[in-house]
Amino acid sequence: MNSELNITKPTLLLDVKKCKANIEMMANKAKASHVIFRPHFKTHQSREIGQWFKEQGVSKITVSSLSMALYFSNDWNDITVAFPVNIREIETINELAGKIQLNLCVENIEAAEFLTKNLKHRVHVFLKMDVGYHRTGIDPANTELIERLLGIFDNSEKLTFLGFLGHAGHTYKCRTKDDILTIEQESIAIMQDLKSSYSTRYSNLIVSLGDTPGCSVADAFEGMDEVRPGNFVFYDLTQQQIGSNTIDQIAIALACPIVAIHHKRNEIVVYGGGVHFAKDQLHTDKHGTIYGLAAKKTGNNWSGLINGMYVKSLSQEHGTIAVPKAIINQYNIGNYLIVLPVHSCMTANLMKQYYTTEGKTIKRL
Amino acid sequence: MNSELNITKPTLLLDVKKCKANIEMMANKAKASHVIFRPHFKTHQSREIGQWFKEQGVSKITVSSLSMALYFSNDWNDITVAFPVNIREIETINELAGKIQLNLCVENIEAAEFLTKNLKHRVHVFLKMDVGYHRTGIDPANTELIERLLGIFDNSEKLTFLGFLGHAGHTYKCRTKDDILTIEQESIAIMQDLKSSYSTRYSNLIVSLGDTPGCSVADAFEGMDEVRPGNFVFYDLTQQQIGSNTIDQIAIALACPIVAIHHKRNEIVVYGGGVHFAKDQLHTDKHGTIYGLAAKKTGNNWSGLINGMYVKSLSQEHGTIAVPKAIINQYNIGNYLIVLPVHSCMTANLMKQYYTTEGKTIKRL
Repeated sequence: MNSELNITKPTLLLDVKKCKANIEMMANKAKASHVIFRPHFKTHQSREIGQWFKEQGVSKITVSSLSMALYFSNDWNDITVAFPVNIREIETINELAGKIQLNLCVENIEAAEFLTKNLKHRVHVFLKMDVGYHRTGIDPANTELIERLLGIFDNSEKLTFLGFLGHAGHTYKCRTKDDILTIEQESIAIMQDLKSSYSTRYSNLIVSLGDTPGCSVADAFEGMDEVRPGNFVFYDLTQQQIGSNTIDQIAIALACPIVAIHHKRNEIVVYGGGVHFAKDQLHTDKHGTIYGLAAKKTGNNWSGLINGMYVKSLSQEHGTIAVPKAIINQYNIGNYLIVLPVHSCMTANLMKQYYTTEGKTIKRL
Repeated sequence: MNSELNITKPTLLLDVKKCKANIEMMANKAKASHVIFRPHFKTHQSREIGQWFKEQGVSKITVSSLSMALYFSNDWNDITVAFPVNIREIETINELAGKIQLNLCVENIEAAEFLTKNLKHRVHVFLKMDVGYHRTGIDPANTELIERLLGIFDNSEKLTFLGFLGHAGHTYKCRTKDDILTIEQESIAIMQDLKSSYSTRYSNLIVSLGDTPGCSVADAFEGMDEVRPGNFVFYDLTQQQIGSNTIDQIAIALACPIVAIHHKRNEIVVYGGGVHFAKDQLHTDKHGTIYGLAAKKTGNNWSGLINGMYVKSLSQEHGTIAVPKAIINQYNIGNYLIVLPVHSCMTANLMKQYYTTEGKTIKRL
């Protein structure tokens, strides 16, 4: 399609080809390693994009809230909520458990006991393990707690133990592939220890691991039974800095109308601020703290970065873009810039829909 | 109402009394100073809350996007869009200009000429001046640009010049009342210079200034014809740190269910993350970087802070709360915490609706 896109306000562009290539790449990696590919859908949160995973043979998904599980439950019948059980949502849990195979993450006695008393349908449970990120999860050395929880599951007619689930979120602090792989190996070792301790008692138990950084840099998924990367569907500048992806793999970008040009300061102000990008920051050697990088327009699409052009600050609706003196005259009021996001999950969450480079709108939760 | 609030997920609570008191306080200050009170509605973005301003005699409002202007145009017939004209939205501009008195901010020749050629109805315009914040606006010393723009307005049948508009956003970097007042006085001096230069030519011109920090710490609004504070409707921790408000004036808070408790680290994990709070940070002497402070529950409401309890990190759905060792045993899985936000504009934007401490839902854009 060669007609111009209809950009009047900040608009989240989606390059479908790049997105589908990201999905296919990860699905193929999982197939080659013979692991269950249970992609995390918190990044795109779109039923339509979900269908592109089905085309790759995916049948199980991960989400991070019961609201997302509810949204996807018309298309998917095996959903893991990778978030500690929120017992205040027992009504939604029961609604979902009566409709699909719902898998929850348990890490404390209170939630386990609450579920046994209040569930109306069978629910599958993972024990959420802390593999070193120290956000949530059970300390793998706390065998007393693990045993008590397994005891509750064993005695419950409504709870079925699936295995151990971990999230090595500390890979996000890495800056080299080797650092990511080291963390990944440590996490796998923890999970394999658990597996060998409990697999005689639970012959089908699985270990579920695998974030976007780990799954992106690893050549194969050894030592895991299931992987749950999510961000890779779009990737972003944070993942690129970590080493997960190249700039050309980033599948979404924000189109932002130019509303002011300040030659004295070599700055362009765009309509596109914190309520569009989100305020996730990236610390770079070259430009200090940034909130996005400008990409080169190619027709209705983009390709590569514009050297030296970055989002230096954001307020609610304004974005201030630093522009090299040599090129600032190429831009006019009413043009739009294309900006790659620092954190695609948060940007997509704010923008609420996608506009493909072919001019089609795709809805999300 | 004494029945418990229905908190199942992260919920944005609104204390109506505090909110109405904030509105009344600012309206009274404006009345006492005989200035036009044109509150900025970008913080609450709610038609229902807008009515509470009408009760205080307010008849003109400010917004920061044409989308907001459209939303409020059923209730308000004099709306200023305090954002540089985005010429890509000319259709919305024409729709609004045919319906209400629409006031736009112009700061460059391109937008001014585009408007003269493409407007179908009269629009009122402010010249957006840079009073030292250096985000947008015309350098007050650039009399050549000012003259050229006034020339375009004078020769246009569709544009009516209203006066000069400034935003001293650099007050947000202040940490003392004196620093805020100094910036406010500098901004007023710039605007008064402009007024005296042009008031013989435009006898009715006004100068519009007045952000929340400046309007909060000033006893009276001298030297301004119009003030446009916005955040004061709710206030927040950023404004409290600046010195704009007390903790007890903050009118919104996020209720977050407890999903995990980690005694070893003295941490509670709540359902409430970056997609609820937004990731605005506050740098404090006491706790370093924080994303919110826990408040004491009092029935369905809150009052004062819980000493030493703060949001230390946020991911997409998780919030990690540091809790003093001495009190962590008071909290259980399934309770909810009440957390005051760092930046109420961004939190309210994400949460999309308010739930009053009386249990009523209030919608927003």
